[in-house]
Amino acid sequence: MDQRVSLITLGVADVKRSRLFYEQLGWEGQEVENTVFFQTGGIALVLWAREKLALDCGLTDEPTDGFGGVALAHNVRSEAEVEEIVATAERAGATVTRRPAKTFYGGYAGCFTDPDGHVWEIAHNPGFPLAEDGSIAVPDFSTL
Amino acid sequence: MDQRVSLITLGVADVKRSRLFYEQLGWEGQEVENTVFFQTGGIALVLWAREKLALDCGLTDEPTDGFGGVALAHNVRSEAEVEEIVATAERAGATVTRRPAKTFYGGYAGCFTDPDGHVWEIAHNPGFPLAEDGSIAVPDFSTL
Repeated sequence: MDQRVSLITLGVADVKRSRLFYEQLGWEGQEVENTVFFQTGGIALVLWAREKLALDCGLTDEPTDGFGGVALAHNVRSEAEVEEIVATAERAGATVTRRPAKTFYGGYAGCFTDPDGHVWEIAHNPGFPLAEDGSIAVPDFSTL
Repeated sequence: MDQRVSLITLGVADVKRSRLFYEQLGWEGQEVENTVFFQTGGIALVLWAREKLALDCGLTDEPTDGFGGVALAHNVRSEAEVEEIVATAERAGATVTRRPAKTFYGGYAGCFTDPDGHVWEIAHNPGFPLAEDGSIAVPDFSTL
């Protein structure tokens, strides 16, 4: 199994509401049969009805108000960008769960949850530099 | 906010167990302070203690046995690869939640959950061709 993720699908209660939320962050997607696809680098982030996603995966949708156990990080190039994006998300209806602040790893980050509780960390992490195309390379920790 | 995901962090109950699971799938990572980083294309997949991840995101860890609402897809180049990877995952202790079979979108896929219930779909989707480097491009649906 190659080390590759092709799509991240977020199960959502209301595809229209979620699409609007991500569009308010500045994203542009395509909707096909109530499924929204956003091209994010070499992968796709997908919004799909939560119960359909569960069913498609052979699972039962047992909604939870708790922590789903997954966090997505969006790394940026400056602390100011962290502030801007978290503020934009808050205006779009996100719940800011951690105000932007210095992190234990020497970066600067804030966190919010989207309308379905999916967790985003917006981070400036000098230890994981962003390439021109937005990709990151995990540093070789053995040499640090 | 650019359309970019930098890291996917999976909250896990036991980092060693999870690392072993992904290594049995053939992945190689680096562990730093009980955090495992896998380079997956231009992003990183990270394993971290679930309660630390929740705390770091400003959330309370309220574990659930239910569906976390997120599915990761790993796309491959053939139906045979789907079969192989799902079989490998099952030998490594995954729960196969959907046996490999034809999908509604004209592909072939199977699903399993990792030791913490994180959902993976292994899919061959002729509509989303994989580039040489493993990346995918969302097709322009308006022209299909």
